[in-house]
Amino acid sequence: MPQGQPTTVPDDGLTTRQRRTQPVLAVHTGPGKGKSTAAFGLALRAWNQGWPIGVFQFVKSAKWKVGEEHALRVLGGTGEGGTVAWHKMGEGWSWVQRDIADSEEAAREGWEQVKRDLAAETYRFYVLDEFTYPLHWGWIDTDEVLAVMKDRPGNQHVVITGRNAPQPLLDAADLVTEMTKVKHPMDAGRKGQRGIEW
Amino acid sequence: MPQGQPTTVPDDGLTTRQRRTQPVLAVHTGPGKGKSTAAFGLALRAWNQGWPIGVFQFVKSAKWKVGEEHALRVLGGTGEGGTVAWHKMGEGWSWVQRDIADSEEAAREGWEQVKRDLAAETYRFYVLDEFTYPLHWGWIDTDEVLAVMKDRPGNQHVVITGRNAPQPLLDAADLVTEMTKVKHPMDAGRKGQRGIEW
Repeated sequence: MPQGQPTTVPDDGLTTRQRRTQPVLAVHTGPGKGKSTAAFGLALRAWNQGWPIGVFQFVKSAKWKVGEEHALRVLGGTGEGGTVAWHKMGEGWSWVQRDIADSEEAAREGWEQVKRDLAAETYRFYVLDEFTYPLHWGWIDTDEVLAVMKDRPGNQHVVITGRNAPQPLLDAADLVTEMTKVKHPMDAGRKGQRGIEW
Repeated sequence: MPQGQPTTVPDDGLTTRQRRTQPVLAVHTGPGKGKSTAAFGLALRAWNQGWPIGVFQFVKSAKWKVGEEHALRVLGGTGEGGTVAWHKMGEGWSWVQRDIADSEEAAREGWEQVKRDLAAETYRFYVLDEFTYPLHWGWIDTDEVLAVMKDRPGNQHVVITGRNAPQPLLDAADLVTEMTKVKHPMDAGRKGQRGIEW
């Protein structure tokens, strides 16, 4: 167990044990690499705990994360740890029968399913990948998201990734990490490569 | 494949294809979360490419990363993707027979093995976890590390994680991401918890 000590102890009437099992809302934002990658890295821990994992990719094309998807799907199928459900907006959400041409509508359909899953406690660990964009663009109401997160039942951890996370989301999150780009190979004229970029 | 375009094209006499297959030296540094987690997330991509993966944990206690270790070991054993070798300084390097009480000596033993493996092209993807600390403390010579990285044969990708990365390492790296702590649950008096912190 980590040896880190809190810098303050809140006057919230909770025991350390209660605080330790509070659900976490984490945001990985900023212009640097690693926002999604770190979220999928966290999913490895969730898998190891035997938790059901739900990934929702709020992007039109999901092909850049084939490595993580394949690895997590294989892990989810081993029966050793948690299960993994991987939902992609880019391929049409699996639960939506009709074709949705409009990205805004597709993003909203994704959020509606996340709400249903949170209410039903379908998963214990959620990755809402690139979810900041529909929030930033006003396609999905940030206040509604915060209300749903605040009232979500049980002990469901949620990691939201993407640039331009709305400030109210950062204010409401328990854990916020900003990934800053210091240097990137593309700056030196190198293109993305297999095994590194996807 | 990513659609990103380089901002400049270097006058290095290389074709795009050659540049695309150059080995990458990446550094994840900064005070925020996600440095190691993103490295292990990258390892999922390497696994998906079928690449042999070597993880070297340069920390005395490795128990905080049990989730990632278990998940990657299981993946490495499926036979579907790459293999995974996981070396822990905290439990005594597996290739060292005698007991090393001194952390500095143990860190150096780890680096000697990394050098041997790079020379032999044992792995295609290396995670040198928390490797910045022995560099920062002067236990391992940064100039030597940079010379070894520069001359490493073949196409071996290396990701180095940890705070306080020496500036020459950042200068030499192809990809540098700084993880900045914006907010952490411990600031609010919450201790680390299962599935999130380890």
